[in-house]
Amino acid sequence: MKRIVLLRHGQSIWNRENRFTGWTDVDLTDEGLAEATRAGELLRNEGFAFGKAYTSYLTRAIRTLDRVLLAMDEAWIPVEKTWRLNEKHYGVLQGLDKSQTAATYGEEQVRIWRRSYDTAPDPLPEEDPRNARFDPRYAEVPDAELPRTESLKETIARILPYWQCVIFPPLRQYGSLLVVAHGNSLRGVIKHLKELSDTEIVALNLPTAVPYVFEFDDGLRLQRDYCLGDPDEIRRRAEAVARQGRVR
Amino acid sequence: MKRIVLLRHGQSIWNRENRFTGWTDVDLTDEGLAEATRAGELLRNEGFAFGKAYTSYLTRAIRTLDRVLLAMDEAWIPVEKTWRLNEKHYGVLQGLDKSQTAATYGEEQVRIWRRSYDTAPDPLPEEDPRNARFDPRYAEVPDAELPRTESLKETIARILPYWQCVIFPPLRQYGSLLVVAHGNSLRGVIKHLKELSDTEIVALNLPTAVPYVFEFDDGLRLQRDYCLGDPDEIRRRAEAVARQGRVR
Repeated sequence: MKRIVLLRHGQSIWNRENRFTGWTDVDLTDEGLAEATRAGELLRNEGFAFGKAYTSYLTRAIRTLDRVLLAMDEAWIPVEKTWRLNEKHYGVLQGLDKSQTAATYGEEQVRIWRRSYDTAPDPLPEEDPRNARFDPRYAEVPDAELPRTESLKETIARILPYWQCVIFPPLRQYGSLLVVAHGNSLRGVIKHLKELSDTEIVALNLPTAVPYVFEFDDGLRLQRDYCLGDPDEIRRRAEAVARQGRVR
Repeated sequence: MKRIVLLRHGQSIWNRENRFTGWTDVDLTDEGLAEATRAGELLRNEGFAFGKAYTSYLTRAIRTLDRVLLAMDEAWIPVEKTWRLNEKHYGVLQGLDKSQTAATYGEEQVRIWRRSYDTAPDPLPEEDPRNARFDPRYAEVPDAELPRTESLKETIARILPYWQCVIFPPLRQYGSLLVVAHGNSLRGVIKHLKELSDTEIVALNLPTAVPYVFEFDDGLRLQRDYCLGDPDEIRRRAEAVARQGRVR
């Protein structure tokens, strides 16, 4: 039996401040670091051990992964980072407060921007200092591939080639892989693995720092998937994520 | 101009307790974490930015590297870990107190074990639980290559192939590399780069968490080398390392 565990990073400073983050490189809160350690302890206690781990270019995901591996005594395993696992790009919304945006544009518009499958927020202007083309970490990404905004559909489109060519095939060799990323980039992976419809994926709210386990047979066919941890706690966290877009 | 920075990990728990560590996977102290952050801030303030980083399979080096990159806002760069950058293996001494060992065996014997070029401590017995063959992180290392003890000469012999084939050639492409490792594994690299004699390398004491910069021309010929930071502070730290083997 082969396993892949997906993990959304712990609470970031802008999660707590309820702001649109996207590609902004915001750090974890102390609570986010503690969540990551607890996720690592849970995985270790449940007998997980990973052959390799993958994460995005964003500090909040990288630090979550570091904490998880430290708690598992697996800091030594190989880690591969890629911009393709970055969070969905939120265009001009990056940095804005979600409740304020809802008050200005209406809850329905915010829900569409956050949860619609194929509608993207307005793109960042070329000269906007938030534009990723000014960030050295993306210097090797062809400019035509570097987003200025994204719909969930577009996020998934840039993740899937990496998933299919880089992450998934070595599962056969490693037996157990860990992917630490973001709410929307992991949605893309889940949609693909579970063959969910565009509507179903929009309704799925992924809680922070809860290990989501996918089990495969030796032919790498999905057998079952489940979250690790207390079900009530997981539901409570998923609902908190769903509530973020409302006027407070 | 191309640059490689060598960095010895920050203070570990057994550095503080003055015990032989070797391949034992001891964590950093809070002071060790703070040293790493200061090294990262120093590198950032001096204008360093790395294309890739290398470290060992030992948590104290990996966590030092993570802290340095976090302080430099470079957590996203690729990191490659290898057992070949591990500390010198101290055989049966691993876990023993250095001053106590000096009182038992004499300062001269301890100096030889710590600093001789080609004398190794007695090897760990095959069934000793400290033997690395029981540790899953070394499962892919051929048993014949997995040390039970090492002289500095043997440490260098297992580092150099990796240095010559993996770390050094991509310097041309990356322009700037960071290597975070251990007192003796870095000695091996320094001996090679500076063409030091067996006697000269034994006299070199590398302070913790002080960036040691090597500059190369475009033909990758060494031009100069220097430590970053306050010279008095660096000398004080190097002397503290040299004193560790004495009876207290």
